[in-house]
Amino acid sequence: MDEFELIRRFFLRDNNDKSVLIGIGDDGAVIKPSPEHDLVMSTDTLIEDIHFPNCLSAEDIGYRCVAVNVSDIAAMGARARWMTLALTLPNINQEWLQKFSNGFYCAAREYGVSLIGGDTTQGQKISLTINITGEVMPKQAITRSNANYDDLIFVTGNIGDAAAGLDLIVNSSNLNDAGKSLIQRFSRPTARHELGQALSGIASAAIDISDGLYADTKKLLMASELGGHLYIDRLPISKELRETFGQERGIEFSLGGGDDYELLFTAPAIKLNEILKIVDKYNTPITEIGEVRKHSQLNCSLNGKLFNYDDSGYLHFNG
Amino acid sequence: MDEFELIRRFFLRDNNDKSVLIGIGDDGAVIKPSPEHDLVMSTDTLIEDIHFPNCLSAEDIGYRCVAVNVSDIAAMGARARWMTLALTLPNINQEWLQKFSNGFYCAAREYGVSLIGGDTTQGQKISLTINITGEVMPKQAITRSNANYDDLIFVTGNIGDAAAGLDLIVNSSNLNDAGKSLIQRFSRPTARHELGQALSGIASAAIDISDGLYADTKKLLMASELGGHLYIDRLPISKELRETFGQERGIEFSLGGGDDYELLFTAPAIKLNEILKIVDKYNTPITEIGEVRKHSQLNCSLNGKLFNYDDSGYLHFNG
Repeated sequence: MDEFELIRRFFLRDNNDKSVLIGIGDDGAVIKPSPEHDLVMSTDTLIEDIHFPNCLSAEDIGYRCVAVNVSDIAAMGARARWMTLALTLPNINQEWLQKFSNGFYCAAREYGVSLIGGDTTQGQKISLTINITGEVMPKQAITRSNANYDDLIFVTGNIGDAAAGLDLIVNSSNLNDAGKSLIQRFSRPTARHELGQALSGIASAAIDISDGLYADTKKLLMASELGGHLYIDRLPISKELRETFGQERGIEFSLGGGDDYELLFTAPAIKLNEILKIVDKYNTPITEIGEVRKHSQLNCSLNGKLFNYDDSGYLHFNG
Repeated sequence: MDEFELIRRFFLRDNNDKSVLIGIGDDGAVIKPSPEHDLVMSTDTLIEDIHFPNCLSAEDIGYRCVAVNVSDIAAMGARARWMTLALTLPNINQEWLQKFSNGFYCAAREYGVSLIGGDTTQGQKISLTINITGEVMPKQAITRSNANYDDLIFVTGNIGDAAAGLDLIVNSSNLNDAGKSLIQRFSRPTARHELGQALSGIASAAIDISDGLYADTKKLLMASELGGHLYIDRLPISKELRETFGQERGIEFSLGGGDDYELLFTAPAIKLNEILKIVDKYNTPITEIGEVRKHSQLNCSLNGKLFNYDDSGYLHFNG
């Protein structure tokens, strides 16, 4: 099967909305963007054995790579619209490709994003690069760099589940329901797409949690040239995570584990009512976990005591 | 050196025009597109040892990956504006990165394209995925599928040089000036960026030659559901290619070798005068090499005799 046949067979599903004038198959796709919007673009590469274990199912790999990229657009307060997929595979396995594309299109439909182009190449490991483009009204994008002194720090959903799930995927075979639910949080992450858009005009700064809560909070604060304080005892740790790993490891997964794709954002206290309305509207918990401060460090406390934490998250090439 | 430091050190050069509201460093870049334009998007992956030999210099790899992607936008008659770079490297070699980014930004400046984001990951081979976005006025994009019966087939520049250059890179050490010039055509391809835009409204269909003249002509004709005829004796084969490899291998490189990134396009005879004006304006030869025909094959003739050719170009995963 050559490249053209591969694309024809697995990647020509009609998921395009009417903004896509020319889709897959030409030198480039042609898109009609919404009038008077700005574009938001992001790109992410996921490599087998680095960003996901090679035992992850093809469906989950397909679903996950879309959700992870939508999450970046959501963290900017924008609406994800179009994506391209550069797919590197060691060989052609039609069963794998069928399942991968099922998962991929499942997420694409869920988040309303159209696949408009791509490239397929041969390489030793599975490598997926998605480029995603979204739209946002002018001046409504939420950046990392606009947090203000005295803003509160919030996080959506529960934190630490995905890292715990990854640990279970790699190390456990006997799984109860709690374990299965944690694994689901790694393999099928929820991009906070609607919620991110709703935060535009409310959040002063935002980032999605891919490298770990502590590391990503630090990135946001560094971009804003500020510091902060996290109340570890307030971290939203799920019942499933506590049950499966206990309180201490739950905190470790929450602070240091990545892959949650929840949104971490800052907002002034005056916005609390609006944030509560978002919690109701999207039926998603949002927890106040800290404060932005003037110094340049990110400190943590647990039940009133300062808590030493120096994990800097997953940095590619570190060392 | 971690990922952030790598980006800071090598990929934060100020090459952004004022359309880039937020560049590298946030969850996504924010761009203000030109009012009332359509977007054209394309993505291409280049992998060491598959798309370029590992002896190619880092500067050339950097230059080439930009030019190759600009070429796709040019083939749509659009103006390339913004790109993201997903870079997979086996290890951090600062000297390599410095040279790569020099070549990369050299091409970015030359073609007026801004690097707005990216991702860096670790993998066994060098792998580069660029996503490029251009702009075009509504209904002005040139597709592959709009060729008409009786259109003429044209090609820009000379054909076969790049494939010959690649052959020399891999197999020769003693190079004369002609050889060096052929190698340059592989390592520093010219994207016909301005010329492609000028062809909008003139060409009925276009494609850039990456897989080989014959294979890419066939792709264009298949997309248009037509056939055609190529006059092999008219192929624009450079003096350097003839001198170095002789007439017969010159034809082989021209028909079957890829990587030229010249534009192949169709246009009705009535547009000949406008095409001649483009030749003058951009100081680039354009050669009429064939005709679009009603049947579904692509035939070739050499000095009036039918010429059998069945190369289907480089198809990834073929076999």
